[in-house]
Amino acid sequence: MSLIESIEITPIAFRDPPLLNAYGVHEAWALRTIIEVKTRDGRYGLGESYGDEQTISQLQAVAPSLIGMDVFHLNAIRNRITAVVKQPDPKSGLEIAPGTLGATTVPRIFSAFEVACLDLMGKITGRPVCDLLGGKVRDSVDYSAYLFYKFDRHRFSDDPWVDRWGEALTPEGIVEQARKMIEQYGFRSIKLKAGVFEPEAEIAALRALKQAFPDHPLRIDPNGGWSVETTARLLPQFDGNLLQYLEDPAPGKEAMGQVSALTDIPLATNMCVIGNFDLPRALELDAVQVILSDHHYWGGLKATQELAYVCKTWNIGLSMHSNSHLGISLMAMTHAAAAIDNLSYACDTHYPWQEEEVIVGGKIAFENGAVRVPDKPGLGVELDREALAVLAQNYLTCGIRARDDVAEMRKYQPDWSGKIPRY
Amino acid sequence: MSLIESIEITPIAFRDPPLLNAYGVHEAWALRTIIEVKTRDGRYGLGESYGDEQTISQLQAVAPSLIGMDVFHLNAIRNRITAVVKQPDPKSGLEIAPGTLGATTVPRIFSAFEVACLDLMGKITGRPVCDLLGGKVRDSVDYSAYLFYKFDRHRFSDDPWVDRWGEALTPEGIVEQARKMIEQYGFRSIKLKAGVFEPEAEIAALRALKQAFPDHPLRIDPNGGWSVETTARLLPQFDGNLLQYLEDPAPGKEAMGQVSALTDIPLATNMCVIGNFDLPRALELDAVQVILSDHHYWGGLKATQELAYVCKTWNIGLSMHSNSHLGISLMAMTHAAAAIDNLSYACDTHYPWQEEEVIVGGKIAFENGAVRVPDKPGLGVELDREALAVLAQNYLTCGIRARDDVAEMRKYQPDWSGKIPRY
Repeated sequence: MSLIESIEITPIAFRDPPLLNAYGVHEAWALRTIIEVKTRDGRYGLGESYGDEQTISQLQAVAPSLIGMDVFHLNAIRNRITAVVKQPDPKSGLEIAPGTLGATTVPRIFSAFEVACLDLMGKITGRPVCDLLGGKVRDSVDYSAYLFYKFDRHRFSDDPWVDRWGEALTPEGIVEQARKMIEQYGFRSIKLKAGVFEPEAEIAALRALKQAFPDHPLRIDPNGGWSVETTARLLPQFDGNLLQYLEDPAPGKEAMGQVSALTDIPLATNMCVIGNFDLPRALELDAVQVILSDHHYWGGLKATQELAYVCKTWNIGLSMHSNSHLGISLMAMTHAAAAIDNLSYACDTHYPWQEEEVIVGGKIAFENGAVRVPDKPGLGVELDREALAVLAQNYLTCGIRARDDVAEMRKYQPDWSGKIPRY
Repeated sequence: MSLIESIEITPIAFRDPPLLNAYGVHEAWALRTIIEVKTRDGRYGLGESYGDEQTISQLQAVAPSLIGMDVFHLNAIRNRITAVVKQPDPKSGLEIAPGTLGATTVPRIFSAFEVACLDLMGKITGRPVCDLLGGKVRDSVDYSAYLFYKFDRHRFSDDPWVDRWGEALTPEGIVEQARKMIEQYGFRSIKLKAGVFEPEAEIAALRALKQAFPDHPLRIDPNGGWSVETTARLLPQFDGNLLQYLEDPAPGKEAMGQVSALTDIPLATNMCVIGNFDLPRALELDAVQVILSDHHYWGGLKATQELAYVCKTWNIGLSMHSNSHLGISLMAMTHAAAAIDNLSYACDTHYPWQEEEVIVGGKIAFENGAVRVPDKPGLGVELDREALAVLAQNYLTCGIRARDDVAEMRKYQPDWSGKIPRY
């Protein structure tokens, strides 16, 4: 009943707005993979992971070796995966999507299957996934309004689709975007993706946000786009409590440690601490005061809880990072977040930027900026196979095989380097 | 089906041999508490904890507040317990039974109920407890031969019972004890409880053991009975690889850090790292290279896995500590150990020193020094209510209400102080 009979791995592509960041701009299509783990009795469990070619080939390479294994035997499944995938050097690195780095291969591939197995374990035992993680400590999970500088449309795409958000290249544009997003989703905190323009222009946007939403905690994330010297110059401009935290101002643990020594503003990261191999040095340097977990590359929902234990023990704040994703990942994040006591901030999510879905019922609703923790067995979502077929077809025709924000930006600006720190 | 309807807390006492340690000598009776958590459908889950008056009263104080809660909701149960028990200052301390310290109150009380809830979750889902911890990575769990200097009998007890082990006060006596224990249980590693005699006498016993059992890794545990200076003097005497690890030679993290700087022999502890609050400083000092976990005071089986994550991340060895216990605890230890990849040494257990049991079928068997991980739902043991009644009666009549090795030793030696370090 709980033995894996088959596994389906379906690469998909869905429309993604031209969102700007320190590396460049999002392409017209975002890639993901939908993982279905099936047992003999017809049950299936769902996972969602990255959609780059490397991840897809690793998921496919691993899948046959998991047939016949018990979905409850997550430790054995992780060991099997460790044996099958080529384990790169366990070195950290710096990348906008840490899930694509070699150092995260095993946790990344395991995570995709772990979530699907937990979904199945929930369905088999009649329990929501959070109950397999010790049970929820909150009924809903807060997310933040994740603002991006953006173009109005993909100027170099043949696809006629235009997103509903419009251009945002100025403080006014960002405030307008925030207003729209908060009106629609009810978010009660705001994150601004930065590292795009001159830092002072981005701080002006922060100030405009603070004026428009004085009760919404603010965060800014230049993705390591500033040097330590630039960050040192900027710190006094985050006057008073303009920021809830400052995410990855400068690239790498050493740089973050240098910034940290200069300020009381908590520093957050999803770039210089992307796996447990990064923890000892980061804590030694007091480089970060908030870790943004991401089950997709930290090794699953249980690994996220283990990270939470480290954060509790070392008095480090905890929240969640996000790349472009759909509802299976949103539910996985929500179950994990619901079962973690010391989640100290609203989680990030790209979810409002996507219009398509693969789950029955379409997009998951936010209430007051939060997602309700479902009580249904498993993750609480079912696969819409027609929708999946459409998105799988998108993948085949979209022509993108790995996310490349730098190359996309070069279409707009041929001399674009995408190197960080730029400022 | 999974809501707690009632909880039974039964203090018990069972016979314990006169085992010597740095603090004194075991009394004639060891105390424990058996916890039964019952659901409406007649199922019950078992836990086993300390039997000192303080723990019993805390278990009893908490129990009513858990009625009606879902056994799957371990996080909520922990939060409820945190709210109900008086939380002492989260300071560490030094004590032979760390479970009795104030700093471990919440994890200690929670652990007793967590194990019982996991037993019930296993029975409800038809799964062994290890499957609720990610599944076993080994089919059996290795334990070590836990040797003690000991008197032949309790000279100041009215009870005529005499244990089957005889006196062991010399190297020859210790080797004889080891031979008996290894013959009967098949243990493949040896731990010598020390801090009793002049260190050189105890090192002579180690050498005698090495000669008699050249292939058995050896450990010695003076329970912080040596000063840093004494330990520094002794280190050259652990020539070559006489020791697998050296457990708590000197008392406290600072002292252990000083010893650690002097030697390549791994230092182990169950005394100076007894909760996550001890981890940051211990790791900063590089004070220990092996942590001996104990679910009874670390906060349960899941918390033991979280500790394992810290050990994996910081490259610290991991094994298990033991106080006098019966089969429910042995099974809980075995399930947790089975689900932890990076368990690096055979676990400690006092189990061979006990002759009584509260579980159906009597004492659990060791094969080649290991306990097989049961495949039955839950912990895999059932309560023998007649046996429980006998041991509960012992508790009522034995006259002991808290373990006091110092007071017991004073009966033999009136000027005994029990202070550490003695040497």
